[in-house]
Amino acid sequence: MTSANTSRLRITADRLWSSLMEMAEIGKTPRGGCNRQALTDEDKQGRDLFVSWCKAAGCTVTVDNMGNIFARRPGRNNSLPPVIAGSHLDTQPTGGKFDGVYGVLAGLEVIRTLNDNKLDTEHPVEVISWTNEEGARFPPAMLGSGVWGGAFGLEYGHGRTDKQGRTVKEELQRIGYFGSAACSPRPLRAAFEVHIEQGPILEQEGIRIGIVNGVQAIGWYDLIIGGVPCHAGTTPMEVRRDPFMSLHGILDKLYQLADDFKPWARMTFGDIRAEPGARNTVPERLIMTVDMRHPDREQLVHMERIMREIIANECGKYRLAGEVRQELDSAAISFHEDCINAVRNATASLGYSCREMVSGAGHDSVNVSRVAPTSMIFIPCEGGLSHNEAENAREEDVEAGCNVLLHAMLEMAIT
Amino acid sequence: MTSANTSRLRITADRLWSSLMEMAEIGKTPRGGCNRQALTDEDKQGRDLFVSWCKAAGCTVTVDNMGNIFARRPGRNNSLPPVIAGSHLDTQPTGGKFDGVYGVLAGLEVIRTLNDNKLDTEHPVEVISWTNEEGARFPPAMLGSGVWGGAFGLEYGHGRTDKQGRTVKEELQRIGYFGSAACSPRPLRAAFEVHIEQGPILEQEGIRIGIVNGVQAIGWYDLIIGGVPCHAGTTPMEVRRDPFMSLHGILDKLYQLADDFKPWARMTFGDIRAEPGARNTVPERLIMTVDMRHPDREQLVHMERIMREIIANECGKYRLAGEVRQELDSAAISFHEDCINAVRNATASLGYSCREMVSGAGHDSVNVSRVAPTSMIFIPCEGGLSHNEAENAREEDVEAGCNVLLHAMLEMAIT
Repeated sequence: MTSANTSRLRITADRLWSSLMEMAEIGKTPRGGCNRQALTDEDKQGRDLFVSWCKAAGCTVTVDNMGNIFARRPGRNNSLPPVIAGSHLDTQPTGGKFDGVYGVLAGLEVIRTLNDNKLDTEHPVEVISWTNEEGARFPPAMLGSGVWGGAFGLEYGHGRTDKQGRTVKEELQRIGYFGSAACSPRPLRAAFEVHIEQGPILEQEGIRIGIVNGVQAIGWYDLIIGGVPCHAGTTPMEVRRDPFMSLHGILDKLYQLADDFKPWARMTFGDIRAEPGARNTVPERLIMTVDMRHPDREQLVHMERIMREIIANECGKYRLAGEVRQELDSAAISFHEDCINAVRNATASLGYSCREMVSGAGHDSVNVSRVAPTSMIFIPCEGGLSHNEAENAREEDVEAGCNVLLHAMLEMAIT
Repeated sequence: MTSANTSRLRITADRLWSSLMEMAEIGKTPRGGCNRQALTDEDKQGRDLFVSWCKAAGCTVTVDNMGNIFARRPGRNNSLPPVIAGSHLDTQPTGGKFDGVYGVLAGLEVIRTLNDNKLDTEHPVEVISWTNEEGARFPPAMLGSGVWGGAFGLEYGHGRTDKQGRTVKEELQRIGYFGSAACSPRPLRAAFEVHIEQGPILEQEGIRIGIVNGVQAIGWYDLIIGGVPCHAGTTPMEVRRDPFMSLHGILDKLYQLADDFKPWARMTFGDIRAEPGARNTVPERLIMTVDMRHPDREQLVHMERIMREIIANECGKYRLAGEVRQELDSAAISFHEDCINAVRNATASLGYSCREMVSGAGHDSVNVSRVAPTSMIFIPCEGGLSHNEAENAREEDVEAGCNVLLHAMLEMAIT
């Protein structure tokens, strides 16, 4: 096949789907999901299977010292930077069959398809499985791509521990994935990642492909409301300085704030605790996490300013101390115009319905985009559900996303 | 001294105060409080000191198999039931110098005062230190008096464990307070307990003595709000089923409910947690404790009914599941009219300012009152603060409360 007629190239949905289902057998959960947390025995089994498939597809496999796996199909000119498809094989403890895995196996399917059609590319093509994207066992998330892309130092990456105190480095060595290659960036021609949306927009709008032009800005905060602990039975209501008294106003006004910045603002309270946390004592302190997002960093900064005013006012009403501590300030990412265009072109030539969108979640591509031209492709997932054993995607969407990946990669790799 | 002129009898404030301060040295905390949790080495030291003082005062000391300590001063007729003063020596982890300890050492001061004045009583007089009133180390609270009064079985009492899994029985044996006497009620002529108020009412009203005629009814509930977990970044606000969305309405309306039943209703949210409790995931579930109190059980039942309606309505608004699980249903206690009258008479004859009140907190006297005529005496504490290292009481109030205890006990014991 010559490059002139690559436009008729299509992936085989059957083979990709059965690879996904075979991988999903490893760490299978009772409710049909997967538990293949990073650097566990199940992760090792998943990695081994993936590596065996890559080798069978004629790839050279390299592992770096963060356990990231690079499977390379040579190009005609191997001094040129490769075009890559990367995502992750690790899952949440009660994760699904698609999150991450789809992006890795779709990359492999691209290589298999090139092989089937005896198609040479000018640039080498690589598929990458990044270590510990989920961060469920070893916080933080996106660790392997983060060390590679320079967001974290190598020592930091090696030193992360699970709840039992085992480090990433020990566990990499234990499962045989402490590779000899340095975990540091090389020049890439282009990087792509196909992923389930993990939200309901594409499904609700009946659209097959999300052309992801960036990732929204994220602010993580700890909100600390300080009161005066006292006895639940003996202390009259009117003399209390009870952190819960300010909470209802705070929740009400922060949800209103998200509404004022709709449709793109997100406001999530994922965790809360009371100290000392005794049933019959008014708490001394309430600590609540706030996850606030907006595609436009300026707007997020504006939201943060209003949030701080709300906390101060509502705590003031009840003579409480309000403190807002920022825990993460992740700027909005705009993906590379060349890569976004390659996805646009591929989607158009394949005739799929599409829309441009920002990713609400972080992905390995955020770290890759620090050092290389990058973009992402989304497909719908059932009910927008992810990080859940019931996570599901339709075979025709899985096929469509992989075809877009194939043609976007080809545009960048073929000449 | 004959019984005719006991009305001039007064306790010595100095001796009681210095006993309190000597006891407070055991388990002393950096911020001036006490950590003498039940059945620790510090509790053993406190018990040993108390027992040595009782023996020095000529008492016979008996320990039962729940570790409750009974120090008895014989009467003229030892076949008559004793008049007792009882409270506890154990403290919260960051407790104060007065909660419980004051009631025990005031009882001892009564016996010392009878000795000083060579005053015989018709009935024997006893001071009792009950095991594990606080329940901080071994939940539930009021355990020693509870087994004695029949609220709990002996096996239940022995089997309670601390966070390290050590049982009450093991720890009683370890510190040498697993006594041979059966932990079961004997007839008592009358039971009294003097205690700091642990609330601000007496101090605010400038009143010295609280004549406690009962303990309010207490309802403990777990409120469980069930939603659907989803990704904080990818899920639009309007499709979420987020338990926090109902929380602001629930808090607002429950505080309003307490206000509708003022001044005596109490509404406390002491603890809350989110599951799974991940910063970037909308929680599947919020679990919040509710402690609701009212001196009138009927009113509390009414409040509970309204609370259940509020939960159902507010959860319904956001398509959330609301569940209310009752964890404790403690009826209001009315103390015994004879004992309340003895306290009234003593207070009047001593000329102290006083008011009748209900106790907002549970006390060992609640359990004692199941099987014997009982009442309580309150004195003010600084700022209403208790369960706190800064807990404090004035020497003149400590003296006044003990004088009321002395004369109330005398009224019941002397003839």
